[in-house]
Amino acid sequence: MNVFVLNCGSSSVKFQIINTDLDLFETDADHMVAKGLIEKVGSKEAIFTFESVGQPPVKGVEPIADHREAILKIKKWMETKGTKIEGINSFDDIHAIGHRVVHGAEKFAKSVLIGDEVIKQLEECSDLAPLHNPANLKGIHAITEIFGDKIPQVGVFDTAFHSTMPEEAYMYAIPYDFYQKYRIRAYGFHGTSHRYVAYRYRKINKLPKEKVNVVILHLGNGCSITSVKNGESVFNSMGMTPIEGLIMGTRCGDIDTGIVEYLLKKEIGTFPEIMSILQKKSGMLGVSGVSNDMRDIEKAADEGNHRALLALKMFAYRAKRYIGSSLAEMNGADAIIFTAGIGENDTIIRKMICENMEALGIEFDEKLNDQCFKGKCMKISKEGSRIAVWVIPTNEELLLARDTVRIVKGATKEL
Amino acid sequence: MNVFVLNCGSSSVKFQIINTDLDLFETDADHMVAKGLIEKVGSKEAIFTFESVGQPPVKGVEPIADHREAILKIKKWMETKGTKIEGINSFDDIHAIGHRVVHGAEKFAKSVLIGDEVIKQLEECSDLAPLHNPANLKGIHAITEIFGDKIPQVGVFDTAFHSTMPEEAYMYAIPYDFYQKYRIRAYGFHGTSHRYVAYRYRKINKLPKEKVNVVILHLGNGCSITSVKNGESVFNSMGMTPIEGLIMGTRCGDIDTGIVEYLLKKEIGTFPEIMSILQKKSGMLGVSGVSNDMRDIEKAADEGNHRALLALKMFAYRAKRYIGSSLAEMNGADAIIFTAGIGENDTIIRKMICENMEALGIEFDEKLNDQCFKGKCMKISKEGSRIAVWVIPTNEELLLARDTVRIVKGATKEL
Repeated sequence: MNVFVLNCGSSSVKFQIINTDLDLFETDADHMVAKGLIEKVGSKEAIFTFESVGQPPVKGVEPIADHREAILKIKKWMETKGTKIEGINSFDDIHAIGHRVVHGAEKFAKSVLIGDEVIKQLEECSDLAPLHNPANLKGIHAITEIFGDKIPQVGVFDTAFHSTMPEEAYMYAIPYDFYQKYRIRAYGFHGTSHRYVAYRYRKINKLPKEKVNVVILHLGNGCSITSVKNGESVFNSMGMTPIEGLIMGTRCGDIDTGIVEYLLKKEIGTFPEIMSILQKKSGMLGVSGVSNDMRDIEKAADEGNHRALLALKMFAYRAKRYIGSSLAEMNGADAIIFTAGIGENDTIIRKMICENMEALGIEFDEKLNDQCFKGKCMKISKEGSRIAVWVIPTNEELLLARDTVRIVKGATKEL
Repeated sequence: MNVFVLNCGSSSVKFQIINTDLDLFETDADHMVAKGLIEKVGSKEAIFTFESVGQPPVKGVEPIADHREAILKIKKWMETKGTKIEGINSFDDIHAIGHRVVHGAEKFAKSVLIGDEVIKQLEECSDLAPLHNPANLKGIHAITEIFGDKIPQVGVFDTAFHSTMPEEAYMYAIPYDFYQKYRIRAYGFHGTSHRYVAYRYRKINKLPKEKVNVVILHLGNGCSITSVKNGESVFNSMGMTPIEGLIMGTRCGDIDTGIVEYLLKKEIGTFPEIMSILQKKSGMLGVSGVSNDMRDIEKAADEGNHRALLALKMFAYRAKRYIGSSLAEMNGADAIIFTAGIGENDTIIRKMICENMEALGIEFDEKLNDQCFKGKCMKISKEGSRIAVWVIPTNEELLLARDTVRIVKGATKEL
């Protein structure tokens, strides 16, 4: 099957076309055949980049009014004479659509076939993810508008993997009716990535799902850490919203709520302005003053920039603390796993996080660490380390595609 | 020396009179001779309770206009004919005053003799602790007004013990100039209690200060956890303000900042109203709906109240996670120590926190735990537990008194 994996943001459309099927899951023979990104959707200068595997990328700038036009643009590219995509001549060769949906609230614990009822429920989740869910819905509506009901659409949720969290992990210590009336609780995010990595770890180590006891650090543009116990998520450091938890590129992660009160008292800005600072001007950028990109910060730190070094230390310190909490909560784990952009490539950050953790059973191997980047999947702890350290590249799109196939074909066993 | 230990709140005055001196520190022969509390200071129905050791308490209700009048009331009680206090006939037998001061910001890393310069600096710290520091200053001014300069006054700070925290522990991932311009950072609180307990642990185990590597849980009306490495505080879970960290009686502890945004959007209240809910109607009270008192909550949980049980589970879960973080940050520790009201007495909470932590090296002894309450100081882990678990009753007032003696007598070595 050819699955069109779609990730619609508020002003962006990202896609992959993945050739996959039930029988290919076991041998990992399924693979991406094309991908692309359109940014600044809704403007006169939308930027597109389309790439068929093995072909040079096609880039351009042109007006693209909305998500529907963006998808039509992709369709047009697919059907252009010069475009060669394995197994694809036109959009008719796409058998199903897999939508990345950010927020499934308590309604969606699994991926789901999208129909009217699901759309209604997704709309009801929108106030929990006001930036993301409406964009995801736009993608769903655009596909339906263009292709009608002839193509099945599946929703795969960032929150779904975390639906197994126990009550004590997802509840906040605020009045209980805030949960009952307003659904305020921790949902956790990056679930598709964490679930993929947990699945991949199990495959590599030939373990049944219920034997997977690991701590996964998804360190990318956003960062979150998940505790996986007996194969299920029992904690994610992003809570009600993606601002909580680890330090991120521009997001503050955990802070004292009293800080917001103090900033308001000092008349730094209005509440929305302060939230915007915490989302967009904080994190690694706010501390370092250099960049939100780890590579720039590491370069600056290396050149003696105190604030850049501080930002790195803080990032690693908080990650270290979160690993400790996960180990306490789960009464130990078999492995710590790094994934996503920083997790897969940043040897410095991994070292800063994992060193001096022997008392917890983590014996980190610096040499192996230094060999691991650019998509390598390997163990970077010493032989005999009580808790292994792994780097496992994530692939959310592949899991999205596989979930789509599973659901369209009625396969019951989740990966 | 007789030290008058004074703890002034916004509408309360608490005191102890402690007989202590440099030579008594080693043998612990120093002791409290009287104590008291005046509540609702500033009202026509202030409530006072005074108690000389070995004597029945004196209680009453009467108008007390301010902190000055409250102190005069205590003075009058001390000098009343029927009052018998060991070593005290009048206030003239008091040799020094030790003030509990909440916030020392970055100015006070140690206890200090109070003079004009110190008062000025304390005033400068007031916007960091707007409820507490002004009240502490009222106490200082009242003593000066009544007794002039003839009695030395010492300030002992809740934040001082945490002044050794490393930068990566006290900085938040927000724009760096918020630290430079507005002094936004984690300060930590309960420092006098944590310092006392660390000191007591060292005495019991006959260790030099630099060999103290412990995690201290101060669980009382407020709750905080401190990581002590080589005898120094390197982390406290209360950050910029006492709302951060563990779940408390009515305070929420850690929450996602996005929750505040969401509550505002849902028009639950104004920002100050929401902060008030997070301070006064959240925590154990907000979750359980029963009480802010652990004993009531435990009773309700025992009777099958789901929310009460949930509150207990959440409290223990969060404490467990914090213990793990401390162990990760310090690369292990020798002991976990419980102190303060809940920490010293609540066998159920201690069990919930310490059980299922074997993977981290904590082997908890349920039988010993059940024997430990009401001021007992003992180890409650199994023999051979890699990390010991202790219960050590706190005594902030004693440390306040000792600091006062030290400073008045010019002793340089801090306890």
